[in-house]
Amino acid sequence: MEVAQVLCMKGGNGDTSYANNSLVQKKVISLTKPIIEDAITNLYCNNFPASLCIADLGCSSGPNTLFAVLEVVTTMDKVRKKMGRQLPEIQVFLNDLPGNDFNTIFKSLPKFQKDLQKTMGAGAESCFVTGVPGSFYGRLFPSKSLHFVHSSYSLQWLSQVPQGLESNKGNIYMASSSPPSVLKAYYEQFQRDFSMFLRCRSEELLEGGGTVLTFLGRRSEDPSSKECCYIWELLAVALNDMVSEGLIAEEKMDSFNIPQYTPSPAEVKCEVEKEGSFIINRLEVSEVNWNAYHGEFCPSDAHKDGGYNVAKLMRAVAEPLLVSHFGDGIIEEVFSRYKNIVADRMTREKTEFVNVTVSMTKRG
Amino acid sequence: MEVAQVLCMKGGNGDTSYANNSLVQKKVISLTKPIIEDAITNLYCNNFPASLCIADLGCSSGPNTLFAVLEVVTTMDKVRKKMGRQLPEIQVFLNDLPGNDFNTIFKSLPKFQKDLQKTMGAGAESCFVTGVPGSFYGRLFPSKSLHFVHSSYSLQWLSQVPQGLESNKGNIYMASSSPPSVLKAYYEQFQRDFSMFLRCRSEELLEGGGTVLTFLGRRSEDPSSKECCYIWELLAVALNDMVSEGLIAEEKMDSFNIPQYTPSPAEVKCEVEKEGSFIINRLEVSEVNWNAYHGEFCPSDAHKDGGYNVAKLMRAVAEPLLVSHFGDGIIEEVFSRYKNIVADRMTREKTEFVNVTVSMTKRG
Repeated sequence: MEVAQVLCMKGGNGDTSYANNSLVQKKVISLTKPIIEDAITNLYCNNFPASLCIADLGCSSGPNTLFAVLEVVTTMDKVRKKMGRQLPEIQVFLNDLPGNDFNTIFKSLPKFQKDLQKTMGAGAESCFVTGVPGSFYGRLFPSKSLHFVHSSYSLQWLSQVPQGLESNKGNIYMASSSPPSVLKAYYEQFQRDFSMFLRCRSEELLEGGGTVLTFLGRRSEDPSSKECCYIWELLAVALNDMVSEGLIAEEKMDSFNIPQYTPSPAEVKCEVEKEGSFIINRLEVSEVNWNAYHGEFCPSDAHKDGGYNVAKLMRAVAEPLLVSHFGDGIIEEVFSRYKNIVADRMTREKTEFVNVTVSMTKRG
Repeated sequence: MEVAQVLCMKGGNGDTSYANNSLVQKKVISLTKPIIEDAITNLYCNNFPASLCIADLGCSSGPNTLFAVLEVVTTMDKVRKKMGRQLPEIQVFLNDLPGNDFNTIFKSLPKFQKDLQKTMGAGAESCFVTGVPGSFYGRLFPSKSLHFVHSSYSLQWLSQVPQGLESNKGNIYMASSSPPSVLKAYYEQFQRDFSMFLRCRSEELLEGGGTVLTFLGRRSEDPSSKECCYIWELLAVALNDMVSEGLIAEEKMDSFNIPQYTPSPAEVKCEVEKEGSFIINRLEVSEVNWNAYHGEFCPSDAHKDGGYNVAKLMRAVAEPLLVSHFGDGIIEEVFSRYKNIVADRMTREKTEFVNVTVSMTKRG
């Protein structure tokens, strides 16, 4: 399983499916804005460097990539104005796996600089953007070189599919029918990965440096809870239908699992405390409707169709995983079925993504 | 004229033409290695940071990109061993224009890390590579954030084609038949660009920081000297032949000029002294044969053909410029003629690229 591929694609791949994903992530960034503002105010209270280094980990490639940076940088500008300070120079490090499309991000930088200038006025030219290829489950930066680390909708991706999922037959992720050994394997992989992440970032952040991380997560302590697993269960329904019709081999289906873990706030807290380098300032949960257009504008008829939107969103995320396991022959059929299944459920129940956001300061 | 395009292509675009260009640049980097070693020894004598930030400006995209970094980093390792120091963490910033193919560089990083490990052993994992899109004729980094700046075979490219070249008819660069106003326009563009480069780098380097810059240049004080202009004059011969045969419109030819300036050591020294932030430690001239295979191995019959090699090398550099001005219809014909012209001259005279290398320290 090529997890690299998945992480690269998680933000969409520039095709039409991106628009939806973009909107969900935009909503998440807007939701977490007060938490980011708080974290940056803390940072300024602790020390005030002439030059700030900030990193966005798992930045992906698409409209959200620079939207997240714009939000963080303009928040910094707002806070420093409130505190009557000069604008520092800001070095922004955008990170994702080496297979990420950094070229597209870099080509859109001139437009980003213009947007920044519109929002901030003079000083926008003191924002220097760079790209950092590599896995955030390893070291990416020199010791004590960062002031602030941001990550949104990336840390739910594990470094690999956990080992020991042989008994998860008929499922593709944690599900109510998954045996305890499967839930344990997923949880242990999350613990290994997240504690490694924390150790690396604690080495890279300066003392007093801050971080705001948003995961796709859950409220419940049950890791197979519907709130985080349902969207994958519906994809499993589509796949299982195709197995029963002989379109997919059963053993292929049985060996397919998604390298993701959607932690609860308590699980996040537990790992942070075990690792010991960070103080938690805020730990919050928020929701975004599966169809981010819900209750907002409807630019076209197609966008009114929630099943269509969600299937497109999930396709951007899941297609590379499915293709690398099943080949590309089944893709159109899977997502056509998935769209109908999702549309049906959305009319009958409340369907939301749950986000866990943690804001932390590195201990002195 | 889209200079961005040119700069991006200067290192080749990954096609077969790259191999030659690669070899010339590799030779240049090897030639300048003692100068780099000297500069890094100076750096270590001035101060010894736990973490070093180095930049390679105009890094291009191809085998040379990481070869240059490998040379600089392993030189650092050699010098620190000689001085009995611990290996510092090294943050490497690779810069080129936003249109450069950073994706290809980033995908080759795992191999680079392995090469580094082979050469340096433990410590290679403390080398963090990042990409920085933007023009080096503007600010790229925060103030006082760099220890060492390297650039090879990039600074001869101007930020734009100089204005006022209307009278350079029949030529595409400075030539013996260019009127004085053309030579003046080229020189003044070089002065503006190089002084801007020096001002930006002086702001970005820490006190005591060093830089080693290698230009394509000339020994003579005559800017239309054969040693720097001849290779372009031969391309003009091919183009003028096609004008006389009606294959290229005369006014198209008259409005085409190459945005390059190949300075003499005295001109480089003059700008450095005017700008005032740097002390020159070394200022040297070296040569590389047009056909870098000359006097070395000949992996195939094709490589024995110097005209073929040089035409390929120059095609990698000039094709984007020619295409953006003339369209792509003439390209095959131009380079077929150019190859024959070059091959003919190479058998009859000594044909070399002249390199000017300057090593400097930022004043305290």
